[in-house]
Amino acid sequence: MTTTTPKGFRAAGLSAGLKPSGKDDLALVVNDGPTYAAAGLFTSNRVKAAPVLWSEQVLRTGTVQAVILNSGGANACTGPDGFADTHRTAEAVAAALDIGAVDVAVCSTGLIGERLPMDKISGAISPLVNALSADGGADAARAIMTTDTVPKTADYEADGWSIGGMAKGAGMLAPGLATMLVVITTDAVMDPAALGDHLARACSVSFERIDSDGCMSTNDTVLLLSSGASGTAVDDDEFEAALTGVCLDLARQLIDDAEGAAHTIAITTRGAASTADAVEVGRTVARSNLLKCAVFGRDPNWGRVLAAIGTTAAAFEPDRLDVAFNGVRVCRAGGIGEPRSLVDLSSRAVRIEIDLHAGAAEATIWTNDLTYDYVKENAEYST
Amino acid sequence: MTTTTPKGFRAAGLSAGLKPSGKDDLALVVNDGPTYAAAGLFTSNRVKAAPVLWSEQVLRTGTVQAVILNSGGANACTGPDGFADTHRTAEAVAAALDIGAVDVAVCSTGLIGERLPMDKISGAISPLVNALSADGGADAARAIMTTDTVPKTADYEADGWSIGGMAKGAGMLAPGLATMLVVITTDAVMDPAALGDHLARACSVSFERIDSDGCMSTNDTVLLLSSGASGTAVDDDEFEAALTGVCLDLARQLIDDAEGAAHTIAITTRGAASTADAVEVGRTVARSNLLKCAVFGRDPNWGRVLAAIGTTAAAFEPDRLDVAFNGVRVCRAGGIGEPRSLVDLSSRAVRIEIDLHAGAAEATIWTNDLTYDYVKENAEYST
Repeated sequence: MTTTTPKGFRAAGLSAGLKPSGKDDLALVVNDGPTYAAAGLFTSNRVKAAPVLWSEQVLRTGTVQAVILNSGGANACTGPDGFADTHRTAEAVAAALDIGAVDVAVCSTGLIGERLPMDKISGAISPLVNALSADGGADAARAIMTTDTVPKTADYEADGWSIGGMAKGAGMLAPGLATMLVVITTDAVMDPAALGDHLARACSVSFERIDSDGCMSTNDTVLLLSSGASGTAVDDDEFEAALTGVCLDLARQLIDDAEGAAHTIAITTRGAASTADAVEVGRTVARSNLLKCAVFGRDPNWGRVLAAIGTTAAAFEPDRLDVAFNGVRVCRAGGIGEPRSLVDLSSRAVRIEIDLHAGAAEATIWTNDLTYDYVKENAEYST
Repeated sequence: MTTTTPKGFRAAGLSAGLKPSGKDDLALVVNDGPTYAAAGLFTSNRVKAAPVLWSEQVLRTGTVQAVILNSGGANACTGPDGFADTHRTAEAVAAALDIGAVDVAVCSTGLIGERLPMDKISGAISPLVNALSADGGADAARAIMTTDTVPKTADYEADGWSIGGMAKGAGMLAPGLATMLVVITTDAVMDPAALGDHLARACSVSFERIDSDGCMSTNDTVLLLSSGASGTAVDDDEFEAALTGVCLDLARQLIDDAEGAAHTIAITTRGAASTADAVEVGRTVARSNLLKCAVFGRDPNWGRVLAAIGTTAAAFEPDRLDVAFNGVRVCRAGGIGEPRSLVDLSSRAVRIEIDLHAGAAEATIWTNDLTYDYVKENAEYST
């Protein structure tokens, strides 16, 4: 399972002592080839962490042979010294693997604005390389967790080839481009030039459609590595469909484990004039703190949905809007519909369906509710 | 004090039985002239409540003789029937005052998506008109409260003329144009054509610079009524300065009483290339749930400030950003500055100062923290 499901990959995870808890905090994924094509998507935040700035350079070569990831510190807003730390980390991994530093992507996650304890990381590189194994994916997935309560992995196995992935992320979930830390591997023989296109399209309907708390991270990274080790050439459409499935699976796991969430909310906007309109409406509704509190309180407060829709630039007429909570159309034609009392919001999964009656496009945005535990987690702990 | 401070105004407030609590819920402010010039600003939400649609029409005439305001129901998303309810309310007030319905503005606040109990409102109009008095401003201010814990009033008294105002609002505070329900009166003799310009400029640096929870209401209304009863002609600059002061006073009172807030946060952005950039940066930071939780937890988490700034389109270089919490520059040149431990966030008032080092413009946005009580108030009660 996970990043070591596809042939040609090894992985490992261990504790370098970055987390006060002593839990695993350093992960490595290595592509043993025969090919090394890679693609990446990074946060569109203009304040980018050092590892993002570094990995963007690495990805320009179109190949990646190893990815080192640490939790316990984001290495963001740490200036030139922080960038040098990332560079040294890549060089240490490269030396241990006998490859070039420019073949090593780096990902970090944790508190912004603190230097990483480089002595601990440097000392852990050799044990980490020694721990690499063809079934180390689960260890790696565990080592990148921060406030995540469970590791997130997904895979897809076809006849002769496969895709595997791992992800972390439980807060600051609102990608502008990519999201959180995600590493996806495949042993399919793929045209390297097509990898980036497949990844961008798969992310646009998965990681870019989740929005936990409206806050965009400085460290979001999604990497796709291909080893070609299966020897199987895969049809482009088939590969993209499988990759999209893996990305959606991981994206849903991120929202299901979002900080303090009591409900997972799927907001589907139909009848939109364009997909962009549907996404804008869904994302705006997903960011309404008032609505998120109402769902926590099991109140199908459709007025808060309409108040949010009204702030968008999407094409619609206010007196044609329909809104349903869990299948009950509580708002019809912009006004009062079925009784609110018919709606049961006691289960974890909540569906909010909006019909703009302005076209044929639709999109679903996933979010979660705003709870005491979200406030507690983000008030009591620095992340 | 309040709307009856200026000469030429009477006001009243009473309970019409709209609120289950039995508290006052209906208010009336009447301009007895000799002049009736008025200006108004309304929510830019595209989903507008019936009273907003009605009052926008009333304000087109440039005069208003009376404003009736109810709490206990927003009359938003109530369709043609809801608009007819607003119309009937204006007509009933007009009949009792022997004026035209088109001279009566209507404001409502409360739960969206419920019809108003028109029998109760109709029955209360006559007692309300009978209760009008030249010192009824405080009663009116109390009758428009919803989740407000205190009434909000302000006034300005000059030599021979004055301005008075009242406001309500404690949630859904994020104006796109005007905000909440606000009625401001003056007895200054003012050029009617200039009233609107003065109001727009005063609001742009007051109500438009507070942002409690990022949620824009369907009912936001600010009305400015002038009676000319002082007989004193006032210099335009002097009037606008006084009006701006009253608006800022009321705006600060709104944020100080925001739902569940434990801290009032003033975010000042300096060194911006334009005022628009400074406002965008401040508002974006004000909407970061992660930052708002951190302040609640008394954590000067400047990384969350930078992560929010990075999502804006404002002119800045990430490695030149400075951020101070209560005077301690914890972030310098985009990196680590003074120790976080030097920051004391125990007092109600918190100052966050951002320097973009990109120009000479500045702006302050006021917001509050995100607390257990905000979640409780918005999860347990429909508003």
